[in-house]
Amino acid sequence: MSSVTGKNIILSVFGESHGEAIGCVIDGLPSGVKLDFNRIYAEMARRAPGKDKTSTPRLENDVPHILSGVIDGTTTGAPLAMIIKNTNTKSGDYSNIMTVPRPSHSDYPAWVKFGGHNDVRGGGHFSARLTAPMVFAGAIAKQILESKGITVGAHILQIGSVCDVPFDKNGVTAEQLVTLSSKQFAVTDDAVEQKMRDEVEKYRLDLNSVGGIIECAAVGLPTGVGGNIFDTVEGRLSQILFGIPAVKGVQFGLGFDFASANAKQVNDGYEIKDGKVCLTSNNNGGVLGGMTSGAPIVLSVAIKPTPSIASPQNSVNLNTMQNTTLEIKGRHDPCILPRAVPVVESAVALGILDIISE
Amino acid sequence: MSSVTGKNIILSVFGESHGEAIGCVIDGLPSGVKLDFNRIYAEMARRAPGKDKTSTPRLENDVPHILSGVIDGTTTGAPLAMIIKNTNTKSGDYSNIMTVPRPSHSDYPAWVKFGGHNDVRGGGHFSARLTAPMVFAGAIAKQILESKGITVGAHILQIGSVCDVPFDKNGVTAEQLVTLSSKQFAVTDDAVEQKMRDEVEKYRLDLNSVGGIIECAAVGLPTGVGGNIFDTVEGRLSQILFGIPAVKGVQFGLGFDFASANAKQVNDGYEIKDGKVCLTSNNNGGVLGGMTSGAPIVLSVAIKPTPSIASPQNSVNLNTMQNTTLEIKGRHDPCILPRAVPVVESAVALGILDIISE
Amino acid sequence: MSSVTGKNIILSVFGESHGEAIGCVIDGLPSGVKLDFNRIYAEMARRAPGKDKTSTPRLENDVPHILSGVIDGTTTGAPLAMIIKNTNTKSGDYSNIMTVPRPSHSDYPAWVKFGGHNDVRGGGHFSARLTAPMVFAGAIAKQILESKGITVGAHILQIGSVCDVPFDKNGVTAEQLVTLSSKQFAVTDDAVEQKMRDEVEKYRLDLNSVGGIIECAAVGLPTGVGGNIFDTVEGRLSQILFGIPAVKGVQFGLGFDFASANAKQVNDGYEIKDGKVCLTSNNNGGVLGGMTSGAPIVLSVAIKPTPSIASPQNSVNLNTMQNTTLEIKGRHDPCILPRAVPVVESAVALGILDIISE
Amino acid sequence: MSSVTGKNIILSVFGESHGEAIGCVIDGLPSGVKLDFNRIYAEMARRAPGKDKTSTPRLENDVPHILSGVIDGTTTGAPLAMIIKNTNTKSGDYSNIMTVPRPSHSDYPAWVKFGGHNDVRGGGHFSARLTAPMVFAGAIAKQILESKGITVGAHILQIGSVCDVPFDKNGVTAEQLVTLSSKQFAVTDDAVEQKMRDEVEKYRLDLNSVGGIIECAAVGLPTGVGGNIFDTVEGRLSQILFGIPAVKGVQFGLGFDFASANAKQVNDGYEIKDGKVCLTSNNNGGVLGGMTSGAPIVLSVAIKPTPSIASPQNSVNLNTMQNTTLEIKGRHDPCILPRAVPVVESAVALGILDIISE
Repeated sequence: MSSVTGKNIILSVFGESHGEAIGCVIDGLPSGVKLDFNRIYAEMARRAPGKDKTSTPRLENDVPHILSGVIDGTTTGAPLAMIIKNTNTKSGDYSNIMTVPRPSHSDYPAWVKFGGHNDVRGGGHFSARLTAPMVFAGAIAKQILESKGITVGAHILQIGSVCDVPFDKNGVTAEQLVTLSSKQFAVTDDAVEQKMRDEVEKYRLDLNSVGGIIECAAVGLPTGVGGNIFDTVEGRLSQILFGIPAVKGVQFGLGFDFASANAKQVNDGYEIKDGKVCLTSNNNGGVLGGMTSGAPIVLSVAIKPTPSIASPQNSVNLNTMQNTTLEIKGRHDPCILPRAVPVVESAVALGILDIISE
Repeated sequence: MSSVTGKNIILSVFGESHGEAIGCVIDGLPSGVKLDFNRIYAEMARRAPGKDKTSTPRLENDVPHILSGVIDGTTTGAPLAMIIKNTNTKSGDYSNIMTVPRPSHSDYPAWVKFGGHNDVRGGGHFSARLTAPMVFAGAIAKQILESKGITVGAHILQIGSVCDVPFDKNGVTAEQLVTLSSKQFAVTDDAVEQKMRDEVEKYRLDLNSVGGIIECAAVGLPTGVGGNIFDTVEGRLSQILFGIPAVKGVQFGLGFDFASANAKQVNDGYEIKDGKVCLTSNNNGGVLGGMTSGAPIVLSVAIKPTPSIASPQNSVNLNTMQNTTLEIKGRHDPCILPRAVPVVESAVALGILDIISE
Repeated sequence: MSSVTGKNIILSVFGESHGEAIGCVIDGLPSGVKLDFNRIYAEMARRAPGKDKTSTPRLENDVPHILSGVIDGTTTGAPLAMIIKNTNTKSGDYSNIMTVPRPSHSDYPAWVKFGGHNDVRGGGHFSARLTAPMVFAGAIAKQILESKGITVGAHILQIGSVCDVPFDKNGVTAEQLVTLSSKQFAVTDDAVEQKMRDEVEKYRLDLNSVGGIIECAAVGLPTGVGGNIFDTVEGRLSQILFGIPAVKGVQFGLGFDFASANAKQVNDGYEIKDGKVCLTSNNNGGVLGGMTSGAPIVLSVAIKPTPSIASPQNSVNLNTMQNTTLEIKGRHDPCILPRAVPVVESAVALGILDIISE
Repeated sequence: MSSVTGKNIILSVFGESHGEAIGCVIDGLPSGVKLDFNRIYAEMARRAPGKDKTSTPRLENDVPHILSGVIDGTTTGAPLAMIIKNTNTKSGDYSNIMTVPRPSHSDYPAWVKFGGHNDVRGGGHFSARLTAPMVFAGAIAKQILESKGITVGAHILQIGSVCDVPFDKNGVTAEQLVTLSSKQFAVTDDAVEQKMRDEVEKYRLDLNSVGGIIECAAVGLPTGVGGNIFDTVEGRLSQILFGIPAVKGVQFGLGFDFASANAKQVNDGYEIKDGKVCLTSNNNGGVLGGMTSGAPIVLSVAIKPTPSIASPQNSVNLNTMQNTTLEIKGRHDPCILPRAVPVVESAVALGILDIISE
């Protein structure tokens, strides 16, 4: 029941949305890694809100402050601790949810689990704000992976009824992923961006929110890492990915499209190319038998609509045990997808770094 | 990189498809649990092949033989070790895959990972045969869960183009799940069975195979178990579920259907019923903030078409490094779904037992 | 290779002796625990240096600053993060050890392990200063344990040639342990304190240091917790205890005195007392078969002489690969025992809390 | 609370003394290791009883039967499962302990912990017989270590009042350890053997038993493995060593002799020898800051007198809750030390293999 993950690279995340600070400890990082802080800040800026109408106007001027594990910008091999002070918090906005749980949020089960002692302001420890330290840690993981020739990148595959062009599963390149990672609104087909923004705006004006799918890929992994039965690449990445609030599904390669497929169509054959064994297709998303197949890892995650909406919703008062109606004021994203892209990349990067570190 | 899972109830699975025996050790079981062996055998029989045309004609007369941890049919609290002898193995059927990896199987990455030392006969340790000890362990987990009022059950939601009626996510009952668990071909709408069998037969005759979706539910869990960030119910169940060969996606509640949904439609509100807090809908599949919400857990997994088909496929000869064509002889399931139902139930039961044991 | 410990209560410790801050994250604490901060500060003060001539004159005005997991002095159930700023650091004192490893310290193996990237100032992450967050976490663990009727306490059993009266292994009481915990110089027989102080002073004046033994007890544990084979109470406590710098041995009950003993003398029999099963003696230190026996846990740890002494020692210059002589300037304890008492108590309290939390 | 240990090489031990079989699963072994079974059998024979008057006359013709993970005598990389059938069991001998717990044994805490459901015959899962699979696993670990230039060996340092010559901590060699491992009665000074045998015989004739110390060393480890704070070499080895029944203390280097030592005497300096950094002494037993120092690992463990003796002892009847007297019939070792030597070696070998595998 913990906020700790990883076997070799152990990430411990702490903090509450409206507490004094959030942060993380990363234990097990290799020593001697020169960190590029501008790139770390850039990754965190991609996740930060307030950029445009798709996200909450809450401004987070998040400066990660490193307390240990780094000297002269280089990792020492000791645990790297980082904190981010919470500055722009308006607790008043949330005072009504102490007694009335927000639908589709963690509020009610957390109230039961912690006997009412948990910090409910802004979701407390369950807030999406806790993805900030994940992105910090993921940005470091990405730099270490790149030094080993591994690149991770993601894009918005779908928002509501608007879809981006999916990755060519067997042909996605590091260059393509790097380009995507540089975008604030990460889509493969730039023409799709405005359509997606329009879709989000439609829901925003309706005091509503909308879900979507993020597709993520990793190229450059060695073949045969991961496995066996209970240590599959799929299972290990999923455990971290489901740690991102709003993620409700994870699939690899064709995923749920395998349901209506047949083997002749979708089996991934082999061929010799330039003297090497290559896959002729990559419907399995780069993982076979729980191990990397040599093709790119391609996965996608389902993201539910932000549950916080200003429209009235049915809830209950936990003190009076009466039905009631809740209108969530405050600042919320009508669509979390654009900001979730670097979070998904980070989860995948951390998972892969942990897997290849054994 | 291990075949061990669980934090409190630790399952260690061993064996190869054509080795001497397969089995498992379950560590951490409570003492004093009277086991109903007929029910364990019944669960294992549901998974066993050879029942009809949907599965391989390989007959496995699998008798789980318990070596430790049980006295007079009651758990002692010491590790429970169980073995199943492999009797009906025909290694000759697989001799050609030593050098030619089967498409979409573990063969190639395992060959790289283990430097050619792994047992390749029938997939070795990566064979779906290793789901037999999972079902054994799951059958025990189900009995312990039932003593706590928790019931797990599953059905075939889809095979190719044929769909069963999905669970009423907020209304599925223990009785319904028990009924499903008693069926050899588990579907909610019995009229669907013949259509699904016809669908499978179509692919079988074409020397092909077909995928599908299994939907699984668990009712009776206490509210507020699971979480926090990296110990979500979703993540922990996924890690075990991806340990089932051919599983390529896991989703909770609406899962990927959240992508085109909006919050007004899909948010799960609350109401007071009989003096208790209840959800007005269960689109989140019983999990909020990684914790149980009090509504049934409802998840589904995507299963790819059995990769072993008798039709010719493109592969390579790892010795000569030449392209070649492979026709997989031997006994294979044209559709693994019917037999996979008890395996999915077992994975979910084991995961839930582990989660509620803390 | 981590600074993380615990299965249910996970403690992650971070920081370097001369870095910006040290601290910890405690994950898995129960919610709703009202913390007594004065007692936490008191425990930390017992460990803090500068009290008298037995310890380094380095003044640490250590104020633990809590960042998360506590509201209104009560645990929320979310990870509790705490930092202590390093204020009184004199890096200059240690500049010579960059190239010349201090004998009997972590310097040389850390230099090899981290390729010279580790923070060497004051031992960096390996500094005994990192026991401050351990004591903070232990002070919280002790409060939770006390609410369950479990008391932990320790005393200096030996310094050099001076010995204190050992615990009555089968009769030590909570009251006795509480009294010991209130002492800055924890000995059972107060007449021994001055003798021990004289012993330390003798070595201090000789620019030398001296070792000793700390004995620790815990009363009030339920019978039958701990075990099985690889999860013994002894093994789990030892793993944490060896995390304290300078600890080189751990023994339970008679420990190494069992070597010259025979069963007739030392077997712990049973008798009925007040209708309950009691042990007639407790030579096994409260642990049988790796589980608690119902008698007090009694263990002792060997502490080596502080390796930092001002006398000249043989070492090497890692740059020139020449032999050299090292005189360690700076502030050091001629005997670490008095300050190590609360650290040992903390390690034992954390271990016991983790064990009884399953 | 498990019988599972290890992070990278995961050992799961199962079975009861008088059950059908005991055994283990070793998960995470490298593939392609050619096993020398004669050496495995030889190690197991060293542990087997019935060799002479120092041990129980119970004959165990223990044949380890491998079920998986090995093909043609070579590891496949899949979990290696092994069972040993229990053949020579006389349950009648133990029937009286169902209700009367044996002093200093696991009986009473296990009865409480498992609610009376545990297998009590011969100690059940807590029997020293479970060290047979440990030795099997350790014999494999030793072979893998040797292929990396690492040798582990041990000897009886003390039985009662008779002592062997201790290891030269900084000079012990692989040759010396190999020689010791070939002896059935492992002592450095062969003249000591008869004295120790006489000491044991004295206690045997008195229906008594005697304790002792085993000293173990490992040479050839790389410098700088192990650590950080909670993953010290000392802590990790201790957790496994305390899994050996009767072990009550573990110390490294001088261990408890550090208590009366001073830094000038015992600090381990450095010098350049043949162009390499070497320690001038090894009082720390090869571990500094939790990491290997480059000098041999030298540790010793305290072993208590076998608690099973035929003399009458005070106990209670758990049914009637009356005091009673117990005379333990059956076959027992008057001194476990000779047979425990390969068990200690195995625990150390397994621990080191796990540590260097990260």
